[in-house]
Amino acid sequence: MTSAPRILVVGAGFVGLATAAFFAQKGLRVHVFEKNRLTLESLVTGRLHFLEPTLAEVFRSVLHKGVLTLSEPRPAEYQQSQFVIVAIDSVERNAWKMRSDSFAQIARFVGSVPARRRRTVVLKSTNVLGFSETFRSILDEQPHGDRIDLVVSPEFLREGLAYEDTANPWRVVIGADTPAAAAAYRRLLLELCGQKVPFVQVNPREAELIKLGANVYLAHRLAFVHEIADYCRAEGIDVDAVRRGIGLDPRIGERYFEPGLGFGGSCLPKDCRLINSIEGQGEFFFRTADTALAVNDQVLETAIDRLRSKLGNLKGRRIALLGATFKPDVDDTRDSQAVALALKLKRRGVNLRIWEPLLPGVQRIVAGDLALASTLNEAIEGASAVIIGVAHSRFRRMKPGELARLVRHRVIDDHFRILKRSSWEKQGWEFL
Amino acid sequence: MTSAPRILVVGAGFVGLATAAFFAQKGLRVHVFEKNRLTLESLVTGRLHFLEPTLAEVFRSVLHKGVLTLSEPRPAEYQQSQFVIVAIDSVERNAWKMRSDSFAQIARFVGSVPARRRRTVVLKSTNVLGFSETFRSILDEQPHGDRIDLVVSPEFLREGLAYEDTANPWRVVIGADTPAAAAAYRRLLLELCGQKVPFVQVNPREAELIKLGANVYLAHRLAFVHEIADYCRAEGIDVDAVRRGIGLDPRIGERYFEPGLGFGGSCLPKDCRLINSIEGQGEFFFRTADTALAVNDQVLETAIDRLRSKLGNLKGRRIALLGATFKPDVDDTRDSQAVALALKLKRRGVNLRIWEPLLPGVQRIVAGDLALASTLNEAIEGASAVIIGVAHSRFRRMKPGELARLVRHRVIDDHFRILKRSSWEKQGWEFL
Repeated sequence: MTSAPRILVVGAGFVGLATAAFFAQKGLRVHVFEKNRLTLESLVTGRLHFLEPTLAEVFRSVLHKGVLTLSEPRPAEYQQSQFVIVAIDSVERNAWKMRSDSFAQIARFVGSVPARRRRTVVLKSTNVLGFSETFRSILDEQPHGDRIDLVVSPEFLREGLAYEDTANPWRVVIGADTPAAAAAYRRLLLELCGQKVPFVQVNPREAELIKLGANVYLAHRLAFVHEIADYCRAEGIDVDAVRRGIGLDPRIGERYFEPGLGFGGSCLPKDCRLINSIEGQGEFFFRTADTALAVNDQVLETAIDRLRSKLGNLKGRRIALLGATFKPDVDDTRDSQAVALALKLKRRGVNLRIWEPLLPGVQRIVAGDLALASTLNEAIEGASAVIIGVAHSRFRRMKPGELARLVRHRVIDDHFRILKRSSWEKQGWEFL
Repeated sequence: MTSAPRILVVGAGFVGLATAAFFAQKGLRVHVFEKNRLTLESLVTGRLHFLEPTLAEVFRSVLHKGVLTLSEPRPAEYQQSQFVIVAIDSVERNAWKMRSDSFAQIARFVGSVPARRRRTVVLKSTNVLGFSETFRSILDEQPHGDRIDLVVSPEFLREGLAYEDTANPWRVVIGADTPAAAAAYRRLLLELCGQKVPFVQVNPREAELIKLGANVYLAHRLAFVHEIADYCRAEGIDVDAVRRGIGLDPRIGERYFEPGLGFGGSCLPKDCRLINSIEGQGEFFFRTADTALAVNDQVLETAIDRLRSKLGNLKGRRIALLGATFKPDVDDTRDSQAVALALKLKRRGVNLRIWEPLLPGVQRIVAGDLALASTLNEAIEGASAVIIGVAHSRFRRMKPGELARLVRHRVIDDHFRILKRSSWEKQGWEFL
């Protein structure tokens, strides 16, 4: 590539780092801004602050080669970059509001720096519908904002596969007001990815809707299969046979159709809220998004009902919750259903012990201020019930006989059907 | 096949006739019961009472060969049949109640006829959850009910492809209390279809849930894409680009993802109601099913709002509705959204003219007592707005210039985006 463009990535989360590492691996000079000093200090030594095996490896390699650099935000890098990729976390957790101030700050900054040639700002963060128009209008108020093209190109990567999905996306959505605005970014990606990736060229509002809509659809798909699962448990019928029977219709499919404890993570619940956000610039109400959230909450209430009908009053009961992350074998607890269940149980006075093997050394989960036990045994000792909160691989290897000696009652709720039931029942365990 | 079994099919609708024609085409002796004398008289001459090109051809062929026969219900055929396939319409339209009397009559009849060997009754009709248990208990009360195996094997065929889907199903669900009960029917199908079809062997309740669940999922998928479409229209953005961007995620898919005027037909709306029916034997409430119905109704209300914001008060307005069937190029108006829209418009005092080219010679649609115009011109003459109610192929060929001379206002609502907009706009048409 002649006169390879320089890339600036704002935000060193999953999306920012995966994008940065991919571009750097393809030979571009990439600089990453990260505001959080602790995160930054860890990153410059080559250590990621989350679990992403492939990304970690590529990241360390491009860092050592010096093609990827990191720092706190500072003006110089803005001036040298043809592409500014914004990948900051877009919402305040719990309040479910866009971090408008952070975005506005970026817009003001980029728009006030003089530049010889046009530059492209790419919003990879998830937006409420219409947000890019707000961002554009802030750019336009700045002295050099008119030399900036704005592109909305939402990221769809799956956690645990952050690098893989960035390098081989199912599609690239490029939302720009004019074909000219999209052209530079599209050309860059074509050079890096080749023709194999389908491009979807749309306007910014369409790009925002594609991102939110895809996540609402996935959330609803999972909500549906959880309703099926709840019905099956209530009726004592086989949910796996039922979802296979349903999923064999190719218009439905069997993939991404596994019930557990609902859906969580940094995207699905958030986007079900954002699509109906009052900050969004539209009056439309997506009932499907609302229903997905309602079902997701119902899943937890049903789990608690099952405990209650077995144990009676839950107040003061010791209960062990195994796993607190939002999906198996990651260390991310953002919007985890296990955490949501923990909070509901605590509110009912349960004496809860949580063990999360993917967060060794962590003593508390900040969200909800939940204490973590440091060992499995510590968590389950004296428990009246054990709940599998996430389907971590290692839970499959737990020894029912050993654990049986530690608990008060051999009662277990395996929402993910990962335990070999007959072996556990042989040791006197009763499945809820 | 040595000593080929004889098959009795109860009910000559889409499902019954497609099953009968398929079995007969494969060389079995098949007899069909049909209670409705008019339908029967037409069928014995080789004429189907609905539009299914492939089925019609196979049906006439096996009828001529004499391998398929039809009559009103009579005892003799019961005694000679090893398989009794029940394919009657399972619910009363509008009341959304199972036709329990019809099913009970069949159960009493079958159970009271003496037989030398075990027979298998196959319920292909859609049931409320738990209905097969009721059916079984009626069988058990009869003198020979204990010699009957009951199998729930719901049919998933698509209208317009009734024969094709019966001959090449995506899966065959066999719901039986014991493997032995399922064995005879499974063996029969294996001989006819070979190993290529995936079998899902479950219990009757699971089979009922697979059927209802699959349709609820499909209904919800369509509801979702209609919400997306409504938002896109309100914001003036391109729904086809958006659904492509969403559907390129292989967990979502682009198939069966086309917005129009909501979902209709004899299955989807019905099954969204049946799954939550108070007749069902469970206390579970499927919110996803309820939401799909709510969105489906909202689609019509939004369509009316659009008309109203263009035309003002609708009372006394002449409006043309083109198409009344539930999907393109079929002649079935059961639970058609076009009909539902027509009823809503009439309730608002609209002077409605409906043209349905797939029902030539039909003067009224019984549901709602809707009069039909006999020509397109008759329907649109003097209209203040034209609504495309279903995406019939022939509507694509309408001449915007000719029609423009007949209407009062050149206003059209093409929910299906089947018209070449620029050609119509050139003739002065305004799209809602």
